[in-house]
Amino acid sequence: FKRILVTGGAGFLGSHLCTRLVGEGHDVICVDNLFTGQKSNVAHLMDKDNFEFIRHDIREPLQLEGLDQIYNLACPAAPGHYQWDPIGTMKTCILGAINMLDLAKYNGATILQASTSECYGDPLVHPQTEDYRGNVSCTGPRACYDEGKRAAETLFFDHNRMHGTKIRIVRIFNTYGPNLHPYDGRVVSNFIRQALAGEDITIYGDGQQTRSFQYVDDLIEAMIRMVNNEDDFTGPVNTGNPHEFTIRELADIVIRLTNSESKIVHMPAPVDDPVMRRPDITLAKEKLGGWEPTIQLEEGLVKTIEYFANLDLTKW
Amino acid sequence: FKRILVTGGAGFLGSHLCTRLVGEGHDVICVDNLFTGQKSNVAHLMDKDNFEFIRHDIREPLQLEGLDQIYNLACPAAPGHYQWDPIGTMKTCILGAINMLDLAKYNGATILQASTSECYGDPLVHPQTEDYRGNVSCTGPRACYDEGKRAAETLFFDHNRMHGTKIRIVRIFNTYGPNLHPYDGRVVSNFIRQALAGEDITIYGDGQQTRSFQYVDDLIEAMIRMVNNEDDFTGPVNTGNPHEFTIRELADIVIRLTNSESKIVHMPAPVDDPVMRRPDITLAKEKLGGWEPTIQLEEGLVKTIEYFANLDLTKW
Ligand SMILES: NC(=O)c1ccc[n+]([C@@H]2O[C@H](COP(=O)([O-])OP(=O)(O)OC[C@H]3O[C@@H](n4cnc5c(N)ncnc54)[C@H](O)[C@@H]3O)[C@@H](O)[C@H]2O)c1
Ligand SMILES: NC(=O)c1ccc[n+]([C@@H]2O[C@H](COP(=O)([O-])OP(=O)(O)OC[C@H]3O[C@@H](n4cnc5c(N)ncnc54)[C@H](O)[C@@H]3O)[C@@H](O)[C@H]2O)c1
Ligand SMILES: O=c1ccn([C@@H]2O[C@H](COP(=O)(O)OP(=O)(O)O)[C@@H](O)[C@H]2O)c(=O)[nH]1
Ligand SMILES: O=c1ccn([C@@H]2O[C@H](COP(=O)(O)OP(=O)(O)O)[C@@H](O)[C@H]2O)c(=O)[nH]1
Ligand SMILES: O=c1ccn([C@@H]2O[C@H](COP(=O)(O)OP(=O)(O)O)[C@@H](O)[C@H]2O)c(=O)[nH]1
Ligand SMILES: O=c1ccn([C@@H]2O[C@H](COP(=O)(O)OP(=O)(O)O)[C@@H](O)[C@H]2O)c(=O)[nH]1
Repeated sequence: FKRILVTGGAGFLGSHLCTRLVGEGHDVICVDNLFTGQKSNVAHLMDKDNFEFIRHDIREPLQLEGLDQIYNLACPAAPGHYQWDPIGTMKTCILGAINMLDLAKYNGATILQASTSECYGDPLVHPQTEDYRGNVSCTGPRACYDEGKRAAETLFFDHNRMHGTKIRIVRIFNTYGPNLHPYDGRVVSNFIRQALAGEDITIYGDGQQTRSFQYVDDLIEAMIRMVNNEDDFTGPVNTGNPHEFTIRELADIVIRLTNSESKIVHMPAPVDDPVMRRPDITLAKEKLGGWEPTIQLEEGLVKTIEYFANLDLTKW
Repeated sequence: FKRILVTGGAGFLGSHLCTRLVGEGHDVICVDNLFTGQKSNVAHLMDKDNFEFIRHDIREPLQLEGLDQIYNLACPAAPGHYQWDPIGTMKTCILGAINMLDLAKYNGATILQASTSECYGDPLVHPQTEDYRGNVSCTGPRACYDEGKRAAETLFFDHNRMHGTKIRIVRIFNTYGPNLHPYDGRVVSNFIRQALAGEDITIYGDGQQTRSFQYVDDLIEAMIRMVNNEDDFTGPVNTGNPHEFTIRELADIVIRLTNSESKIVHMPAPVDDPVMRRPDITLAKEKLGGWEPTIQLEEGLVKTIEYFANLDLTKW
């Protein structure tokens, strides 16, 4: 059993990761400032001996002993969240990376960075392979996240080159599932919430832009395999589901699965909204023991819809 | 007359800027940690009433009062210098930007960022216009500088959007002139030093890669016009000389102007060395009162060679 730090552990992805690691018997420390995360996401773990929650902001240094692994997930991920305080987002990405890398080095721990498909920006190469350098605006409204995450990758590689720090970088493509924040403004949470409430489904732009949706369990499996890979494979490696859908298709599927009477309405597309996104996962398959997504969109949406249907939205 | 802070003021570009601003009668504060700069570059200003030198590292906060303008130039610029301590370079770019932006906001000062053509990486669009998003590796050995500078631009724009901070961003293309560090490893200083000493001229790769060389006085003029532009034009704006030369052509010109007997030798090209680089300066011409470079390569090289010929290289 290992001692494992999960930053951002009370968020959507982090809570699934903590649940799985605690279930496997590891000693898990969850660090979160609760900016976009919820204690309720990890409430079921609070009474376990091998789980601990620390309210802490990773922009400040952190001292912990005896760590074997660090999963660095702390960062707002939804466009509405990360654009709310863009300088704060940059600091979380960059000061957070510096602080967690220093902690990994001190402990001799392996550290995984939750990077993102946003490193490719609005890609001109399709599907995206890891060697594609991206099409990112460094001055626009998404830059605080995209450039923050790119700079974090740079810091990871330089820490590895300078200090031998054991790094692992996964570039995560759109992921969904239970524990998504119902008001994070992301497309899956918006559409399901709207469909269940019978409200209009808001498509930004013409709905012909594409995304590829990965169910959370598939991602968690990839991250765990990545941290534990023995051959010092650092990445960056894409993790995502290569099945590509238009946003219009997603809306239709959600309406069908919820038997909703909601109507589709169109709203203006956000600035710099990527037109298409689909991972090439050849590298992940090769390096992560044949890993590939096992849960396809309808199956994953059914589970997510069930979660949303049981939420008491008046509490948010 | 204005009170003006120049960070990196003891470096190559900063020393020219300080000299000009002091000459115009402004109250100039030069801040530098002397990592790659020299006090000798500003020695002739030390006894002026309107000049002051502070040894300070911009990665740490700085408190100053009554500033009207800030030129943020502090950052190692030569590949050999910025790759020596890559994490330090990232911190200078990013923590430096945060600290100087906070200082600008506090003072209500206009702040200019010395950004770079490296924001375009190894460009696939030629010549480069400001809206080109670049071809930058975020994981390679140049990333600490390229991504650091891109992240600084992001912070500038977000500070402007969040706090109304008055920002000006210039993307500087290769610039040369007196006060270049003789051992900075950059191509102009290497070739001139080698030619004057009769040593071999070291061309990395086949010498067919291109650069466009701007004489320092032309850049200083552009920066001053940029800071003082009245119509809140933030940039980013390219400043450089659009005349493009291969590195082989540069070697031949330097050999001719120095009457050198040096031979050309070829060495391996560095990782991620950009293949071509030339600024499109349409925007600068339009927004900076018809600004364009006035000093062409041979004229500028003659002045630079004269400077190098008078250096006592045993002191470096
Ligand atoms: N979900 C996706 O589709 C996706 C895609 C690409 C990358 N990612 C990355 O995965 C990670 C987790 O994303 P998520 O979808 O779970 O988002 P989330 O917002 O649900 O979780 C992020 C968590 O980090 C916490 N946090 C934010 N700033 C912090 C700080 N400064 N200090 C401590 N904690 C902080 C939040 O409170 C939250 O609990 C993020 O790094 C994100 O960039 C997610
Ligand atoms: N010369 C060029 O061709 C060129 C091209 C593009 C951009 N730039 C930018 O222009 C600026 C000046 O470049 P230069 O050619 O004069 O380089 P330089 O190395 O001669 O000058 C940089 C100065 O900054 C100082 N410095 C570095 N880190 C510092 C820190 N943390 N705190 C305080 N001072 C620090 C150095 O001591 C030095 O005096 C840099 O920001 C560089 O990125 C230069
Ligand atoms: O090194 C830092 C700098 C800031 N913050 C926090 O980050 C949040 C957002 O600060 P922001 O950078 O947006 O503030 P600004 O610099 O714009 O005033 C605030 O709660 C700060 O306390 C932090 O944790 N570490
Ligand atoms: O209510 C919504 C929310 C999002 N989108 C679109 O869905 C895609 C995915 O957006 P999201 O914010 O989920 O994540 P992104 O992949 O853009 O980071 C983008 O094209 C959005 O414009 C939409 O049409 N309606
Ligand atoms: O916020 C910071 C962090 C570091 N440094 C200085 O930056 C230099 C380079 O530190 P580096 O980041 O390379 O150190 P590391 O993090 O790799 O130990 C050192 O002299 C530090 O004192 C600084 O001035 N401000
Ligand atoms: O002694 C040298 C130094 C540099 N270069 C080449 O000259 C170009 C400009 O290099 P420099 O380091 O001056 O600046 P860069 O524009 O690459 O930042 C690059 O293609 C280098 O590989 C060279 O051939 N010989």
